[in-house]
Amino acid sequence: MLLVADNLNILKPCIAQALERGDPEPIRQLVRRCLGAGAQAFDLNAGPLTREPEERFAFLVETVQSVTSVPLLLDTTNPAALGAGLAVCRNPAIVNGFSLEPAKLAHILPLARQHDTDIVGYLLHPDHRLPMDEDEMMQVAVSLCGAFTGSGTDTARLIIDPVVAPLSWQDGIRHNLAVLSVLRRLPELLGTPVRTLAGLSNLTTGPASAHQKEVMETAYLSMLASAGLDMVLFNVFHGAVVQAARASRALLGRTLFTWAEISPYS
Amino acid sequence: MLLVADNLNILKPCIAQALERGDPEPIRQLVRRCLGAGAQAFDLNAGPLTREPEERFAFLVETVQSVTSVPLLLDTTNPAALGAGLAVCRNPAIVNGFSLEPAKLAHILPLARQHDTDIVGYLLHPDHRLPMDEDEMMQVAVSLCGAFTGSGTDTARLIIDPVVAPLSWQDGIRHNLAVLSVLRRLPELLGTPVRTLAGLSNLTTGPASAHQKEVMETAYLSMLASAGLDMVLFNVFHGAVVQAARASRALLGRTLFTWAEISPYS
Repeated sequence: MLLVADNLNILKPCIAQALERGDPEPIRQLVRRCLGAGAQAFDLNAGPLTREPEERFAFLVETVQSVTSVPLLLDTTNPAALGAGLAVCRNPAIVNGFSLEPAKLAHILPLARQHDTDIVGYLLHPDHRLPMDEDEMMQVAVSLCGAFTGSGTDTARLIIDPVVAPLSWQDGIRHNLAVLSVLRRLPELLGTPVRTLAGLSNLTTGPASAHQKEVMETAYLSMLASAGLDMVLFNVFHGAVVQAARASRALLGRTLFTWAEISPYS
Repeated sequence: MLLVADNLNILKPCIAQALERGDPEPIRQLVRRCLGAGAQAFDLNAGPLTREPEERFAFLVETVQSVTSVPLLLDTTNPAALGAGLAVCRNPAIVNGFSLEPAKLAHILPLARQHDTDIVGYLLHPDHRLPMDEDEMMQVAVSLCGAFTGSGTDTARLIIDPVVAPLSWQDGIRHNLAVLSVLRRLPELLGTPVRTLAGLSNLTTGPASAHQKEVMETAYLSMLASAGLDMVLFNVFHGAVVQAARASRALLGRTLFTWAEISPYS
């Protein structure tokens, strides 16, 4: 399971200020800290980027890849910014992402094909609603896959995100159980071993202690791993989650186990 | 998932000495500490009990139930000791346990029927070998269930233990993946929602730090919970495992989630 840091987010004041000022150093420092904590890829979440979208997103991509050559998930809803980011990206790039929403199908999906990159597809209805249950999720997955291949893109480029719900939502627990089931059933349903990604931070949004969040993220991460998840997006400074991911990888490895994969200290 | 403490083990010097001297206080203190740590049941692991088996096992049962009324798993390979323990046990009792081994079928299984208690059945070959793979485990499960119902006992009394293997074994990882799969497939195979138990401490036997053991136990516990496990046997002083069990219960609960189930502090 690939560990993707969701720490580079425009909602964080240090990132927002660095983009505003065109100052690469705070971003570089954060990237180095994330790599030290175990990040194997980065989500560059720049939001809609209403001001100077192309310049700012290209700057963000350039800044991150000046420090690391790991894969970058280009995460903006602004197609112009996304195109500019893809144009300068030398690291392996993943567009994050599209859904059945008409604007995404029209303006985001073609960019992945044009730049020959992987792309994340969310299991959401065209009007951005979450599917109600497991059957609806599977129907959306089939529609999404159909839209994808219909655009002439190879399904090997598709990474499906079944969208983890916050625990605090009334149906959050039920939805996240369906996510586990969908992850297990997808390969058979689609007839191909499609890759999958899940965003773990969404699970624990809202007021709770950092420890409580880590405990819930850790338990759910192991369940996701066991259900076959390929990539997980999370706060890599939650050290217990990084350890759980390494433990899960070892437990699912079908290889000879060595304790060296797990740090001996907390 | 019921949290069963495996801390009352004859291999621990304090327990061995207390049994030797007939001194209940060290046992009572340990039981109270385990309850404080989150134990919801106790495994009373007295080994083969070569000296004064009946007196000592009855003493152990009496001592534990003088402190708590939670379920007790009576865990001795000595049928005379087991009978004496069952005779004095007023708490809910579970015999732990039998297998296809002829001596167990002849001398342990009848005691559960005689005292009308639940009993744990291990997925082991008659010669005590672990099944090689998932298919062999399923075949052993069918044979075990057959032997059980053949003895005239209701399958509602059976708790299947698929036997977790040490990670350090050459095929440990592969075996434990098969355990997860068997837990998922058992209800359909047996045509009844049979309960299951797994011993987590066996996973991490051998030289490793306490933190490393907790990390691996925590990840595997969440996978076991997600696969449908009903009861887990482990060292309840591994606080991270207790927290993971509570988190897993919440994640699988299909109920409205509240953070109060998880301690806000590590």
